[in-house]
Amino acid sequence: MARVAVCLADGFEDVEAVTPIDLLRRAGVEVVVAGVTGKEVTGSRGVRIVTDALLADLSPEDFDGMVLPGGMPGSSNLAASDAVRAWLSHCMKAGKTIGAICAAPAVVLGKAGLLEGRRFTCYPGMEKEVEGGTWEPSPVVRDGNLITSRGVGTAGLFGLELVRAFAGEEAYQKVGKATLIL
Amino acid sequence: MARVAVCLADGFEDVEAVTPIDLLRRAGVEVVVAGVTGKEVTGSRGVRIVTDALLADLSPEDFDGMVLPGGMPGSSNLAASDAVRAWLSHCMKAGKTIGAICAAPAVVLGKAGLLEGRRFTCYPGMEKEVEGGTWEPSPVVRDGNLITSRGVGTAGLFGLELVRAFAGEEAYQKVGKATLIL
Repeated sequence: MARVAVCLADGFEDVEAVTPIDLLRRAGVEVVVAGVTGKEVTGSRGVRIVTDALLADLSPEDFDGMVLPGGMPGSSNLAASDAVRAWLSHCMKAGKTIGAICAAPAVVLGKAGLLEGRRFTCYPGMEKEVEGGTWEPSPVVRDGNLITSRGVGTAGLFGLELVRAFAGEEAYQKVGKATLIL
Repeated sequence: MARVAVCLADGFEDVEAVTPIDLLRRAGVEVVVAGVTGKEVTGSRGVRIVTDALLADLSPEDFDGMVLPGGMPGSSNLAASDAVRAWLSHCMKAGKTIGAICAAPAVVLGKAGLLEGRRFTCYPGMEKEVEGGTWEPSPVVRDGNLITSRGVGTAGLFGLELVRAFAGEEAYQKVGKATLIL
């Protein structure tokens, strides 16, 4: 079964973080909640989460992909992290799945040049900050190893698309129906 | 501004807990994340949250309402709590808003007899465990001071209905649009 790191920096968007963790675990995917700014992190709406490990203590080679919630300043804190940059570089080279939602596609992936020539979506308006990518107004856009999404209201579909990528179509349908998202 | 306790017992459904906390705080409502089984609680999908206070240390008289996430055994743990029972009793007598989603309407409110003669919804199938209430298949049902909802996929609309109850229609529209739920 796949193994995925969900990367939480202080200021992460609470719903956008917890939804993929929840749905991936329902699908049997091994999720490691990885702290970027510390072992305990605080969301943009004040939810305090105790993470499973520090991202800097984990090796991307041991994982099948990574997920970046949005929220501010969470996305900026992700973009400023050496560990996140190293993980992104590894995942891009290895073709491993990278999920990003809301502010994260623009602030983290876009600023690192990873959306060049790629289709993506993000929180409405933030696409203006991205050069070289093709923005689409869909709830979720999957282009090869990149899965991007728009915001809190699309977090369920984002999480399900990650389920599809890491656990397959049957798990997508099963988890989608059990959670009433589909 | 209104003051609301979101009650978390071990085994709470992670998305159903975090979504109302997030949306209510976006609307400016004061949310106290209240631990029922301890100060640190673990969701049904393993998310570990550090709560703001223990519910047993808070007085319902100081609050305008309470929210009960679903999930198992979270809902059973809520139903077994003396503090939750005391809060429910106070809120019913005072006509204060009670929100419950997924398993919580049946397992907490239904078993306490609070759905007698009331309209409600819950996770599909669990309505069979409720006697004396009228089940509706809507994403969210509001009957007087009771707001009930179905599950993870309706947590956004549940959170927004709580925003409407505690902060008004303008906040409902504003938060709904900013989060892309509406």
